[in-house]
Amino acid sequence: MSSQKFANPPKRLEGIDKNVWVEFVQLVLDTKAVNLGQGFPDFFPPDYVTKGLVDAAQNSGPLTNQYTRGFGHPRLIAAISKVYNKFLGRELDPAKEVLITVGAYGSLFCSMMGLVEHGDEVIIIEPYFDCYEPMVKMAGGTPVFIPLRLRDSGSNVLSSADFYLDPAELASKFTSKTKAIVVNTPNNPLGKVYRREELQMIADLCIKHDVVCLSDEVYEHMTYNDAEHIRIATLPGMWERTITIGSAGKTFSVTGWKLGWSIGPSYLLKHLQTVHQNCIYTCPTPIQEAVARGFELEFNRINSEECYFKALAEELKPKRDNMARILTEVGFKPVIPEGGYFMLAEISNMKVDLSSEDPDQPYDYKFVKWMTKNKGLATIPNSAFYSADHKPLAEKFIRFCFIKEDSTLAQAEKIIKDWKASMEG
Amino acid sequence: MSSQKFANPPKRLEGIDKNVWVEFVQLVLDTKAVNLGQGFPDFFPPDYVTKGLVDAAQNSGPLTNQYTRGFGHPRLIAAISKVYNKFLGRELDPAKEVLITVGAYGSLFCSMMGLVEHGDEVIIIEPYFDCYEPMVKMAGGTPVFIPLRLRDSGSNVLSSADFYLDPAELASKFTSKTKAIVVNTPNNPLGKVYRREELQMIADLCIKHDVVCLSDEVYEHMTYNDAEHIRIATLPGMWERTITIGSAGKTFSVTGWKLGWSIGPSYLLKHLQTVHQNCIYTCPTPIQEAVARGFELEFNRINSEECYFKALAEELKPKRDNMARILTEVGFKPVIPEGGYFMLAEISNMKVDLSSEDPDQPYDYKFVKWMTKNKGLATIPNSAFYSADHKPLAEKFIRFCFIKEDSTLAQAEKIIKDWKASMEG
Ligand SMILES: Cc1ncc(COP(=O)(O)O)c(C=O)c1O
Ligand SMILES: Cc1ncc(COP(=O)(O)O)c(C=O)c1O
Repeated sequence: MSSQKFANPPKRLEGIDKNVWVEFVQLVLDTKAVNLGQGFPDFFPPDYVTKGLVDAAQNSGPLTNQYTRGFGHPRLIAAISKVYNKFLGRELDPAKEVLITVGAYGSLFCSMMGLVEHGDEVIIIEPYFDCYEPMVKMAGGTPVFIPLRLRDSGSNVLSSADFYLDPAELASKFTSKTKAIVVNTPNNPLGKVYRREELQMIADLCIKHDVVCLSDEVYEHMTYNDAEHIRIATLPGMWERTITIGSAGKTFSVTGWKLGWSIGPSYLLKHLQTVHQNCIYTCPTPIQEAVARGFELEFNRINSEECYFKALAEELKPKRDNMARILTEVGFKPVIPEGGYFMLAEISNMKVDLSSEDPDQPYDYKFVKWMTKNKGLATIPNSAFYSADHKPLAEKFIRFCFIKEDSTLAQAEKIIKDWKASMEG
Repeated sequence: MSSQKFANPPKRLEGIDKNVWVEFVQLVLDTKAVNLGQGFPDFFPPDYVTKGLVDAAQNSGPLTNQYTRGFGHPRLIAAISKVYNKFLGRELDPAKEVLITVGAYGSLFCSMMGLVEHGDEVIIIEPYFDCYEPMVKMAGGTPVFIPLRLRDSGSNVLSSADFYLDPAELASKFTSKTKAIVVNTPNNPLGKVYRREELQMIADLCIKHDVVCLSDEVYEHMTYNDAEHIRIATLPGMWERTITIGSAGKTFSVTGWKLGWSIGPSYLLKHLQTVHQNCIYTCPTPIQEAVARGFELEFNRINSEECYFKALAEELKPKRDNMARILTEVGFKPVIPEGGYFMLAEISNMKVDLSSEDPDQPYDYKFVKWMTKNKGLATIPNSAFYSADHKPLAEKFIRFCFIKEDSTLAQAEKIIKDWKASMEG
C-alpha cells in the first residue's frame, strides 16, 4: 500500500499546495458560470498571430516542430531584442541578455530559483500576482510583504492611483538579508501603473541595499488615459540590477501559449539559464516561431496606431468603462484601473447571506463562491493577492476581468441587474 | 556596476551550470555540420499531427489559445487516460493520476522537486539521460550511480542487451536514505530495453526499501525485433510506487512541442502537482489540444499496423540497420540497440590526431568536437551520460541519432567514406 515515507512532501513544498487558480478554475468548470475570473480574452486573438502558429506547424520546413536552442529560438531572441532595444534604449545581446521561458510564470520561477538563496528575503508589494509568494518559499527565501496604502483622494470614485507605497514603510523593509524586490506594473489585480517618482524611490533603495528588482511587466502595453508605462530597467543604475519580465500570452492575447521572457544583464541572467536548462531545457518551438513572427510584424509598424501594442489598449478602454458603469449601477464600487485588464470592486454595499459558505475563509472568498454558484457569475477574491496576515486589508474587494467579448459583459450585466431587481423586489 | 552579491548562484545551482545540449547544439549552429547529434527527426511529423495544431490554433473556437486547466487540458487527460488504461491495465482517474508537463523534462523535474528531500539519495543507472543528475542536485539530493556492466557475449557484434545490471551491485546501492531510482527503458543513449526479470529485480528492491521508481519511458513505442517494452508500473505492487513518464515529442515525432506527462498514484502525484503549479502553472493549450487529437486518433486504430505507435518503429528499423552498416564499414563498432533511436559506437579503431582539442576533456568529447569541426559530422559523446567518476568507462563510445531522413544518413555515409579513403590514402 501507499507509503508513509511519501505522505509529506519535501520541506520546500510545505504550505504551498493550495492555489487560487486551481480552486476557482475548477469552480467555473463545475458551475459553467459567466467567467469574469481568470485573466484571458474570450475572443479570438488577432488573425496574424494564430496564422503564425499555423505557419510554424505546417509551412516552415520540418524543423519548426523540433527542438530548438534551449535559451531561446534564434529567430525569437533576435525579434525580441529588436523590439526591446527600442523600449529599453540599449543594444541587447540576444544570446546572453534574453531568456525565453514557459510564460512569465517560468521567468519568475527561474529568477527566484536562480537568485534567491536559503534565508534570503524578497520584498513583495501587495496586492501581488499570487505565485510570487510560493516561488520565494520554494527557493527557501522569506517573503516580506508591504501593502499599498489607500489614500483618500476626496473623490467618490476610487482609482488605482489612490493606492500608494509609503516611503518610510518601504525603506523599513530593506535589510541586509534582502536579495530582491518584485515590482508589478501595471499591477494585477489593482491596475496601478507606477509613476516615475515611485519607481525612482524603489530604484534608490535597490541601489543603496544592493538588491535586484524583478520587474513583472506583462501588461506593459495596456495603459489608459495618460498613464505611461515606465520600465524600471531604464532608470539610472538599474539595468544592471533588473530582470524585466514579459509575456506573449498577455502581449498577443494568447494566454494559452504560455511563452514569456526575462531580459537582464548576463551576470544575472546566466543563473536563470542554469535553472531553465535543468527544469525544462527549452520551450515549444512552433510557439516560439509564431511569437517571433508576431514581434517582427509589430516592429515594422511600431509607430502606427495599428500596432497591436497600441490597438489592444484602445480596444480595452471602452470595455473598462463599460465594466465600471455596470458595476456602479448595482452598488459595487469599482476601483478604476490605470492599466492592465482587471478591475477591483468594493463589495461592502452588496448585502448577501453567506451563511451557506465555509466560515473559515476570508469574506471575499465566501462572496465569490456564493456569487459563482448562486448567480452564475465568476470572479476572483482580492485577498488571494495578499499574504495571510494582510487578507483583512483586502477582503472587501473582488476582482473582475474585463478582457471579454461585449456579449459576455452584457451577460454579466443582465445577471447583476436581475440580482439588483430581486434585492429591491 | 554588477554586484558581487550575485556573482555566485544559490547553492542549489552549484556545479550544474554546464549542459551538454547547450554546448553541442551551439557547435552545430556554428559549424552547420550534418547533425546526428541531438535526438530529433529531421523530417516532417505525420500530417494529422501538425494538422491537429493548425486546428487548435484556428478552428476550435476562441478558447484553445487561452489558459486551460493547470494540471492538464481536460480533453488531453481524458485521451491519455484511455490509451494508458490499456497500457497499464487499470482505470486511471484523469484528474488525479495524470499530470501534463513541459516535456518529459518537466515531469522529471516535478518528480525530483516533489519527492526528493534534502539529503535523500536517488539511484541513477548509467548511462542515463543527462538531466537526471542536476535535477537530483537541485532538489538537494545525492545521486548514487551504478553503471551497466558489459558482458562478453562471444559475438563480435555488440548489442545493447550485452549491458546488464549486476544484481549484487544494484542491491548494494539501496540504503535507508534512498528515496527513488530512475529507470529509463528503452534507454537513451544505449538503446537497452529492460527485460521483465531485470525490472522485477528493481521492483523487488523498491518494495523492500520503500523506494519510488521514476520510470522514464519516452521511447516506449520504439522497440525492434523481439524486444518488448515492459512497464514497471504493471509489476505486482509497483503501481503505487511508480511515476510513469512519457513524451509527446518522442511519441509523435514532434520534439519541439515539449509536452510530457506523469502518470501515478494520486498520493505521489499531488506533490508533483504542487511543484508544477508553482513553477509554470499550465502548459500551452494549443499543443495540449493537438496532442489530445493525436491520442484520440491513435486510440481508434490502436490494434492496426497503421497506428503510429507501431508504424514509427517499422520506419526506424531499416534506418537503424543502415546506420549500423555505415558505421561498421569504416571501423566504428556499433552497439545494436533494441529500442529508442540512438546507437552507440566504439571509436577505438578510429585513429585521429586530437592534439588540437582542449586536453582537459574526456576522449569522446575531444573526438566529437574534432569530428564536428573537421569532418562536418556532429554526434554526442557517450560520457555525457555518465557521472564524473565513471566517465572513463564511457569515453570509448559516441552516440549517433538515426531518426533522420535517408538523405541525411547518406550524407553521413559519404563523409565517413571519404574520411576512410583519406586515412587509407
Ligand atoms: C502579473 C502577472 N504576472 C505573470 C503572469 C503569468 O503570465 P504567463 O501566463 O505568461 O505565465 C500573470 C498572469 O495572469 C500576471 O497577471
Ligand atoms: C530518456 C529521455 N528522457 C527525457 C527526455 C526529454 O523529453 P522531452 O523533450 O519530452 O522533455 C529525453 C529527450 O531526449 C530522453 O531521451
